[in-house]
Amino acid sequence: MASENASTPATGYLRPEIDVSTLTEVLDGEYAGIRDLVRTNLAKHASVLEEADELGIDAFRERVREVVVDMASTGQTGMGFPAAYGGGGDVGASIAAFETLAFGDLSVLVKVGVQFGLFGGAVLQLGTGRHHEAYLADIVGGRLMGCFAMTETGHGSNVQALGTVAAYDVASREFVITTPDDQARKDYIGNAARHAELAVVFAQLEVGGRSRGVHAFVVPLRIDGATAPGVRIEDDGRKMGLNGVDNGRIWFDGVRVPREALLNRFADVSAEGVYESAIDNPNRRFFTMLGTLVQGRVSIAGAGVGVAKVALAIATKYAVRRRQFEAAADTGEQVLLDYGLHQRRLLPLIARTYALHLAQDGVRTQLHEVFSGIDDDAQARRRLESRAAGLKALATWHATRVVQECREACGGAGYLAVNRFAALKGDSDVFTTFEGDNHVLLQLVAKGLLTDHASEFEDLDQLGMVRYVTGLAVETVIERTSAHKLLERVRDLLPGGDEWDREAGLLDSEYQLAMVRFREEHMLAGLARRIKRGIDQKRDPGAVFSQVQDHVIALARAHVERLVTESFVDKVRALPEGGEKEALGLLCDLFALSTIEADRAWFMEHGRLTVQRSKAISREVNDLCRKVRPLAVDLVDAWGIPSAVLRAPDLVG
Amino acid sequence: MASENASTPATGYLRPEIDVSTLTEVLDGEYAGIRDLVRTNLAKHASVLEEADELGIDAFRERVREVVVDMASTGQTGMGFPAAYGGGGDVGASIAAFETLAFGDLSVLVKVGVQFGLFGGAVLQLGTGRHHEAYLADIVGGRLMGCFAMTETGHGSNVQALGTVAAYDVASREFVITTPDDQARKDYIGNAARHAELAVVFAQLEVGGRSRGVHAFVVPLRIDGATAPGVRIEDDGRKMGLNGVDNGRIWFDGVRVPREALLNRFADVSAEGVYESAIDNPNRRFFTMLGTLVQGRVSIAGAGVGVAKVALAIATKYAVRRRQFEAAADTGEQVLLDYGLHQRRLLPLIARTYALHLAQDGVRTQLHEVFSGIDDDAQARRRLESRAAGLKALATWHATRVVQECREACGGAGYLAVNRFAALKGDSDVFTTFEGDNHVLLQLVAKGLLTDHASEFEDLDQLGMVRYVTGLAVETVIERTSAHKLLERVRDLLPGGDEWDREAGLLDSEYQLAMVRFREEHMLAGLARRIKRGIDQKRDPGAVFSQVQDHVIALARAHVERLVTESFVDKVRALPEGGEKEALGLLCDLFALSTIEADRAWFMEHGRLTVQRSKAISREVNDLCRKVRPLAVDLVDAWGIPSAVLRAPDLVG
Repeated sequence: MASENASTPATGYLRPEIDVSTLTEVLDGEYAGIRDLVRTNLAKHASVLEEADELGIDAFRERVREVVVDMASTGQTGMGFPAAYGGGGDVGASIAAFETLAFGDLSVLVKVGVQFGLFGGAVLQLGTGRHHEAYLADIVGGRLMGCFAMTETGHGSNVQALGTVAAYDVASREFVITTPDDQARKDYIGNAARHAELAVVFAQLEVGGRSRGVHAFVVPLRIDGATAPGVRIEDDGRKMGLNGVDNGRIWFDGVRVPREALLNRFADVSAEGVYESAIDNPNRRFFTMLGTLVQGRVSIAGAGVGVAKVALAIATKYAVRRRQFEAAADTGEQVLLDYGLHQRRLLPLIARTYALHLAQDGVRTQLHEVFSGIDDDAQARRRLESRAAGLKALATWHATRVVQECREACGGAGYLAVNRFAALKGDSDVFTTFEGDNHVLLQLVAKGLLTDHASEFEDLDQLGMVRYVTGLAVETVIERTSAHKLLERVRDLLPGGDEWDREAGLLDSEYQLAMVRFREEHMLAGLARRIKRGIDQKRDPGAVFSQVQDHVIALARAHVERLVTESFVDKVRALPEGGEKEALGLLCDLFALSTIEADRAWFMEHGRLTVQRSKAISREVNDLCRKVRPLAVDLVDAWGIPSAVLRAPDLVG
Repeated sequence: MASENASTPATGYLRPEIDVSTLTEVLDGEYAGIRDLVRTNLAKHASVLEEADELGIDAFRERVREVVVDMASTGQTGMGFPAAYGGGGDVGASIAAFETLAFGDLSVLVKVGVQFGLFGGAVLQLGTGRHHEAYLADIVGGRLMGCFAMTETGHGSNVQALGTVAAYDVASREFVITTPDDQARKDYIGNAARHAELAVVFAQLEVGGRSRGVHAFVVPLRIDGATAPGVRIEDDGRKMGLNGVDNGRIWFDGVRVPREALLNRFADVSAEGVYESAIDNPNRRFFTMLGTLVQGRVSIAGAGVGVAKVALAIATKYAVRRRQFEAAADTGEQVLLDYGLHQRRLLPLIARTYALHLAQDGVRTQLHEVFSGIDDDAQARRRLESRAAGLKALATWHATRVVQECREACGGAGYLAVNRFAALKGDSDVFTTFEGDNHVLLQLVAKGLLTDHASEFEDLDQLGMVRYVTGLAVETVIERTSAHKLLERVRDLLPGGDEWDREAGLLDSEYQLAMVRFREEHMLAGLARRIKRGIDQKRDPGAVFSQVQDHVIALARAHVERLVTESFVDKVRALPEGGEKEALGLLCDLFALSTIEADRAWFMEHGRLTVQRSKAISREVNDLCRKVRPLAVDLVDAWGIPSAVLRAPDLVG
C-alpha cells in the first residue's frame, strides 16, 4: 500500500500507532465469538502440551480423546453440522474454530479434523437422511468416533486407482468389502488404531460384475470394543509427530454391510442391483463426491497459518529479549531483532503470515457461501476447489519454513522440547502431505487454469490434460489469458504508460499487483505453448508433461500468490484510516515486494524488471523491515494466541 | 566437466557405466579401512535405531552409552588420540570415522562427538602432559566420561562474554569456580545430565583481582556417582531429537579445584599467583585456544553430509519403486523418478551432496595436515578455521533441506517413525546451531575475507571489523580482490574473450568456475565499499554493520560455494578415464549449474548473465537431471550405507 509511505520522506516517517485489541478485532472478523471460545478451551486444556511429552503413546492418545470430547461438549467442534443434530449450522465458523485450534497441541487439532471434518463431514456430505438420523447426533457429541478410510498404502494421491472393492451381492442385499492385496490396505487412517467404531470406506463399487468407480460406505470397525469380524487393524505406530492420533491400517476380508451402508447422496444401488445416479458421467460423479470434502483442505490451510503464527510469536518475543554481541562501543550486547539479518529472517515471514491469513479469510468465505447455498453453482465450486488446493499448498509449506527458521532463530533453547518447536515441527510436518500432497495440489490448480476448468477439476490424469490443451488452438489459450488486456488496464492505472514497470513507485500497490498478475498470465500462456509444441513434435504426452512439470508448479504458485496479494491489498484499502491500516499497509508492501524479490530472476528474464529496479526492490524490502521492526511484537500479539499455549519458558519468559 | 558432454550431441549421448564398488573406493579414499570398521560397527548395533523409539529416555541414554563404549573398544572412536594413550594417532581417520558414523543413530554420533571430540579433544589440545597422563587413556577407552562446558544460557555464540568466573586463591593455591547468575549457568551440555564425571569448564580467569579472559579448567562433576560438592546439575529434559544424549545445565557455587586443573598449554598461573602466557595478546590467546577445537566443526560438516546421504538414499530407492498416476495410455502408473519434477527435487541434491563430500575431503585433509604438524602455521590454521566454519554452515543447512525434501518426497510413509525420517529430522535439526550458529559462522568467514585474516579470525566483534575495514583505503580492499586479474585469466582460458560470459559453453567447467569466482570477488569488493561508504557518512558502525549483514552472509556463501565447486572440478579432472569419471562429471555440471541457477538473479543484476543464457542454464539443468536419472540408484549405493541402517521398510523394501 503506502502511497502514504511513498510520498513521505524517510526522515519524516512516523511510526504507526497500533492498538493490539483493535487489530485483533480486524483479524478475528465476524468469527470473534467462536475464536474466543476456542481460546478459552485451549487455555483450559493447556496442560496437554506438557502431556504430549510426558505421557506414553497409549496414555496420550486417551488424553487427546478426552480433550476432544470435552471441547465437543462446548459446541466448538460441531459448528459445521446442522442444528438439528446438535451442530452450529455455520460452516465458516467451523473453519474459524479449526484455525484457532491450531494454536494448541496439534494432535488435538488433527483428531478434531478426523472426527468432525473427515468422518463426520463425509457422513453429512455424502450420506442422506437415513445416515444423518442414525449417526450425526452421536458424531457431533463425540460419542461415536469414526474414521475416514480413503488412502491406501499403494494409492495416496491417485484416489481413482484405489484397490479396495465393494461388490453388491443381490441375493443378500449386501455389499461385500474386500482388500485384494497389501497395496490396497487402508493406511495412515486417523482414529483407526484405537478409537473408531465406524469407518467411511472408499472402495470400487461393483454391481452385477460391472465396476462403477469409487464410492463410500459406512462400515463397522469395532463392536463393543472388539474388532468386527473380517476386519483386521494394525497400528501405524510412532510417527514423527501427532502421536496423540491413533493412525492405523485396515484390511477387509469379505466384510458384509447392508445395502443402506452406501452413502447414497450422489448414487445408489437398488435392492435388485440396479445402479442409479443423477450424474451420468462417472468422472463427474467421482469429482462431485470428492468436491464435497474440500473443507478438509481449507481447514489445513488455516491450520498452517496458525502454526506459523505460534512459531513467529515465540521467535519474535525471543528476539526482543535475547542480546548477542556488542553493536556499538558503549551499548553492551544488542537485542537480536535490531540486527538487519534477523529482521530479514523474521519480518517478511510475519508479513506473509498476515497475507495468508487474509487470503484464508477469503477462501473460508467462499466455502461458507458454497456450502450454505448462498453462492453454490458448478463454477463457484470449482473456483473454491482450486483456491483451497492452492492455499493449502502455500500455507503448509509456509508453516514448515517458518517453524524451521524460527527454531534456528531461537538457537539451542529452540531445540528443547519444553519450548514448543519440537512439537510444532514434528506435528506440522505432515501438513504438506495429507489432505493432498502439495505438489499434486498445485498441479490441480495449474490444470484448472490451463483448461479454464472445462473438464472436471480434480481429474488429475495428466494425459487428459495434455490432450485437452493439445485440442485447443494455442491461440485460444493465449487469447484467453488476458495478458494484453491486463497491460492495457495497467497503462491507465499506473504512471509511465507502457513503461509502467520502470516508472511506477515500488510502494504503489497497483504496481505490485500488475507485476504478480503479469507473471501469472505470462506463465499460463508460456505453459500452453510448451505443451502444444511438444505435441506438435509428435512427442509422447507423458514425456511432454514430465518435461513441463516445473512450469506447471511455477504457474500454480504464481496464481496463488496473485490471489493472496489481491486479498491483502483489498483488505488494507477497505480499512478505516488509522494506525492499524498504516501498519497493515507496511506489511502488505513488505509481503508484495519480498514476493517479487524472491522471484526477481523470473521478472528479469521476462523483461519486467531492470537490474537497477531489482536492486531497488531489495533495498526497499530492507527499509520496510526497519519500519516494521518496532511494530513486530504488537503484530504477533494481535494474533491473540493465549499465553497459556505460547509455552516456551526459556524464550518468551 | 563434460567437455565430453558438450561436444556429444544429445542423440549420440551414451550413458556412463558405473561400477558401484569402484565409485565407493573413489569416495572412501585413503580412509576405506576405518570407514569399513565403522560400517561393521553400525551394522552390529543397528537395533539402536529401533531402540531410539522403543526405550524410555533413561533407558535409551544408557543404551547409547553402551554402544559408544563398545565402539570405543574397537578403536573406532580414538583415532584422533596419540597411540601412547590407546589412540590411533590419525586425525584425518578420526574425522572419516565420524562422517561414516552419521549413517546410524545420531545420538550415538553426538555422544561420540561430546566424549572424544569435545571433551577428549579439549584435554588433548588445551592440556599438557599432566592432564594427558591423568586422563587420556581412560577417556579413549570410554572409562572416563566427561563434558565440554562452554555454552551458557545467556551466551551461546559470543564465548568471550561468558559469565562463569574462576578466581585464583593464592592462599590455598586453588581456583574457585562460580556461576554468578542464571544467565551464566552452563547449558545444553552433553553428558552433563547423567554420565560425566569430569567437565572441561570455560570460565573468566581472575588472578589477583585482574581478569585474564576465558580459560579452561578440569572440574569434577560427580564423585562415585554423586554430584560433587558445590555443583548443581539440572537435566535439559526432552529435546526435539538426540534423546540418547543427556544434555544438562550446571551451576558452580564456589567449587575449588587445584591449580593444576587449569588446562595450561597456552597460559598458566604460578603457585604464587603470577599469570604467564607465551602469547601476549589476550585476544590472540583466546582465539588460539578456540582454534584448537576446530575439529568439532569439521566433524559436524561431515556428519551433515552423511545425514543427507541417508535421506537421499531412502528417497531415491523409494522413487524408483513407487508408482503414481498414469503417464501414457498404455503403461500403467509411472515410477516417481521418471517425473521431471521429482528429478528436479532429488537429483540436484544428490549432486550437491557429492560436491560437499569432496569439499569435506579437502577440509579434512587440511585439518589432518595442521594437526599432524605437516602444514601448521598461522596462515594454514586460519584458512582451515575459515573453511571449517563455512563448510559446517553449508553442509548442515543442506542436511536440513535434504531431509525435509526427502520426507515430503516419500509422502505419508515418510512420516512414520519406522521409516527413519522422524529421527533424521529431529536429531539433525540442531546441527545448524551447535558448534557455532550457522549465521554467526558465515559472518566469521566473511570477516576473514574482508580483513584478509589480518586480525584474529574468531574475533567476532563486528565493531572491530567495521573499524578495520574503515581503516583501509577501500581501493586496497578492491585491489586485493582479484576480480580484474581473474577476468584477465578467464579471458585466456575461455572462448569469447571479454565476452566469455556469453560465449563459453555452459558445460565448460572453466566457465562455471569463472562465474562463481567472479561472484565472490564482486561481492567482496562491494561489501567493502558499502562499509566504507557508511562510515564516511559518519553513521554508527553498529548500524552500518546491521545494514550490510545480508551482504556479509551472501559473500560467505559465495566464497564457500566457490571452494566447493573448485574441489569438485579438481576431483573429476584427477580421475582416470572411465564411467565413474563421466558420472561424476555429470554431477559436477549439475551441481555447478544448479548453483548458478539458484543465484541467477544476482548474476543478471551484475551483468554476467543474459536473460537468454539464464534460461539456457535452467534447460541444461533439466537435461542433466534426465542424464543423471538412470544413474541415481548407483550414485546413492556408492555411498556405502550399510543396508542394516538404511532402515525404512515401507520405502526401501
